[in-house]
Amino acid sequence: MARVLTLQGEDFPRWYQDVVAKAELAENGPAKGQQVIRPAGFALWERMVEEVDARIKSTDTDNASFPLLIPQSYLSREAEHVEGFAPECWTVTHAGGKELEEHLVVRPTSETVIGEYMAKWVKSYRDLPLKLNQWANVMRYEMRTRLFLRSSEFLWQEGHTVHESYEDAHEFTLHILHEVYRDFMENVLALPILAGIKTVEERFAGALNTFTCEAIMRDHKALQMGTSHELGQNFAKAFGIQYLGSDGKQHHGWTTSWGTSTRMVGGLIMGHGDDAGLRVPPKLAPIQAYVMVVKDDAATVEAAEKIHAELKAAGIRSRLDKRGDVAFGRRAVDAELKGYPVRVEIGPRDLAKNEVTIARRIGEVGKTSVSIDGVSKAVAEALELGQQALFDEAQARLDSCTKEVSTLAEAIEAAQSGVAKVPWDLVGVEGEKQAAGEGITVRCL
Amino acid sequence: MARVLTLQGEDFPRWYQDVVAKAELAENGPAKGQQVIRPAGFALWERMVEEVDARIKSTDTDNASFPLLIPQSYLSREAEHVEGFAPECWTVTHAGGKELEEHLVVRPTSETVIGEYMAKWVKSYRDLPLKLNQWANVMRYEMRTRLFLRSSEFLWQEGHTVHESYEDAHEFTLHILHEVYRDFMENVLALPILAGIKTVEERFAGALNTFTCEAIMRDHKALQMGTSHELGQNFAKAFGIQYLGSDGKQHHGWTTSWGTSTRMVGGLIMGHGDDAGLRVPPKLAPIQAYVMVVKDDAATVEAAEKIHAELKAAGIRSRLDKRGDVAFGRRAVDAELKGYPVRVEIGPRDLAKNEVTIARRIGEVGKTSVSIDGVSKAVAEALELGQQALFDEAQARLDSCTKEVSTLAEAIEAAQSGVAKVPWDLVGVEGEKQAAGEGITVRCL
Ligand SMILES: [Zn+2]
Ligand SMILES: [Zn+2]
Repeated sequence: MARVLTLQGEDFPRWYQDVVAKAELAENGPAKGQQVIRPAGFALWERMVEEVDARIKSTDTDNASFPLLIPQSYLSREAEHVEGFAPECWTVTHAGGKELEEHLVVRPTSETVIGEYMAKWVKSYRDLPLKLNQWANVMRYEMRTRLFLRSSEFLWQEGHTVHESYEDAHEFTLHILHEVYRDFMENVLALPILAGIKTVEERFAGALNTFTCEAIMRDHKALQMGTSHELGQNFAKAFGIQYLGSDGKQHHGWTTSWGTSTRMVGGLIMGHGDDAGLRVPPKLAPIQAYVMVVKDDAATVEAAEKIHAELKAAGIRSRLDKRGDVAFGRRAVDAELKGYPVRVEIGPRDLAKNEVTIARRIGEVGKTSVSIDGVSKAVAEALELGQQALFDEAQARLDSCTKEVSTLAEAIEAAQSGVAKVPWDLVGVEGEKQAAGEGITVRCL
Repeated sequence: MARVLTLQGEDFPRWYQDVVAKAELAENGPAKGQQVIRPAGFALWERMVEEVDARIKSTDTDNASFPLLIPQSYLSREAEHVEGFAPECWTVTHAGGKELEEHLVVRPTSETVIGEYMAKWVKSYRDLPLKLNQWANVMRYEMRTRLFLRSSEFLWQEGHTVHESYEDAHEFTLHILHEVYRDFMENVLALPILAGIKTVEERFAGALNTFTCEAIMRDHKALQMGTSHELGQNFAKAFGIQYLGSDGKQHHGWTTSWGTSTRMVGGLIMGHGDDAGLRVPPKLAPIQAYVMVVKDDAATVEAAEKIHAELKAAGIRSRLDKRGDVAFGRRAVDAELKGYPVRVEIGPRDLAKNEVTIARRIGEVGKTSVSIDGVSKAVAEALELGQQALFDEAQARLDSCTKEVSTLAEAIEAAQSGVAKVPWDLVGVEGEKQAAGEGITVRCL
């Protein structure tokens, strides 16, 4: 079999580039740092959106849409925020053939414009909590870019909420971190997460605290997969988000913001991919079963169509490949590269025995013959075992590169040498503050 | 009952503004012509996206994502296109604190950038048809704007395809018009459609032909709800989209593009809304049944929760309102304003008789008592009848303001006085050309 990709062990970054290109996931856009997300890559993102959106909705957060362009003056209202984002902005100066009175920036994030509207909509404690989310494109100027991981434009979801108290806002920030982000990443993406807190230097511009979900990639480096920010009253004060409390007095709200982006596609690639290409966890996979004819004679195609229909009826996301004009071996290598969890291969020889071949890309890798009657069951089982196997593999990697500690003091000590894993419960709010005071991010570095 | 809205008969545009504001659908953004789509408005759009996206996918079109910013030089490659769009562009001149070598425009539409990539991806006739779609934001500078109907930034889907021949491209343009757009608009939005062809002056910049879906609003004006363009070989030539044919020779592809946008939300409002507010067709409605407690005593709330759960189990999109601290009358008026097709009202008096009240906003308007056991069935029936009633009402309006003709010649004559309705089959490709030659758009003007 011809080698399609650079080996991971040889050059991990080049392997990544190869997978993105050869699996036709994305390529560079015409202007600096932009990306074109191709159908195979976008299908992965669409599934992420579907799963994350359902979890966000389950927190009673509503989707909405705010403008792409933000007046420059909005950014300046929160001092740390403008300092953090101004150097990264893309600026619209002209429209309709003339210069604009006030220049507008393409949103690098929407705290400011959403803050402006929240201030109008929030009047009384009865309006709280106000929980909004948007799926949107944002832009930040980047000198060095990598597809999905760091690009000038990316797609993301940004949640923005206002609460009555510090406690409510704090609890919601953590609820999103754990019940939305970590739950999705561990149970769908099959990537165990280290939940950490960012140091003063790394935290979001204008935030009190930034919490992060980090996953360990196959090169043993950590990748930030999502963040949840406690913004305290900074934005509420800058934008005048005030409410009449049940005590009859005016109070500033407590806001949060939180986001996950197309960077998760990069995390999926580097967290599970191997020398043969992508490996997509079944619960995420847009294509879970890839039904292939070995030859395209009428009987084989008919059998394949029947099996494809049966798999779909069983709730399995199946795709049918009945091309006889592309060599079987080439199609099989391409299916490995694209990371489909299970292939169902159907040829005249199998059919003569009333069987098909199940080829597993994950879990107990390899091929098995099963009777045609048992295809749906065999595929469903392979998908379930494969999902668990990918998670176990990632968990073992995470364990091997982190040091377990049982007290906060130990954790802070271990972190001095760059490695620490602390049970979240152990840390708590006080622990977070203390760790942050010591300048520590709890992650595998 | 206090009047919440301007009456339609008094001032239709002001009624529209009132509904958009009072039902909390959208408001103006900070910069000129921008819009903020609020949760109630965005939920309508999300349902449109869900339904239209499923229909697009059923045509074997794949979703993808192309960059927001397009180099100015791209626009210039197709002469008519640059002439049509240049005056409407929003331009990014600076990024990362310095001026860009080439200015970039915020996409007004993506034919040019997608054409550039299609040229790379299409090599042989085996790569055709290539069918792509993206859900994206676009911007066009507008002097006079109206929320949803005409805004500087809007959300849309834009499909872009390349085909081997004129016939394939033509057929696909019409397939999208009828099987995707018209099917969605008639069967989900409950708005009967006049499918027409744009005159030379009105057609898309660079297109051979622009087909349009027009619906008749309650003020008897037509609104363009979606368009499908045959681009001929204009963009293929400008961007070098060429393929090696089965004849061993190089040919230029034939491209199409087609779009629907958040303007459809405006069409929904004006196509069905009445003096009490929105009326949302059940098949679209994010909230089909609104379960309300009359009082929030424990027994009533418990019964309401049970009915809400039962409706959801029956596949009905239900929302529960168990607020006892807002007057029932005010909540009922608000539910009318928001256009929920059916309310299920539950109070102690109903419960004593083991009944609830079904209030219909559409169809046979009014209230009926039904036994608690029969709620799901009664709601499902009311939704089905309501969907049909809204469609019938819109169809009657369309019939009353169009003139039926049976030949193309009659149609062209009738169109001179501004009114014509021609069966599509009668027109055909030749008819379209002839009608276009006479400068006629087949719509209710
Ligand atoms: Zn929680
Ligand atoms: Zn058709």
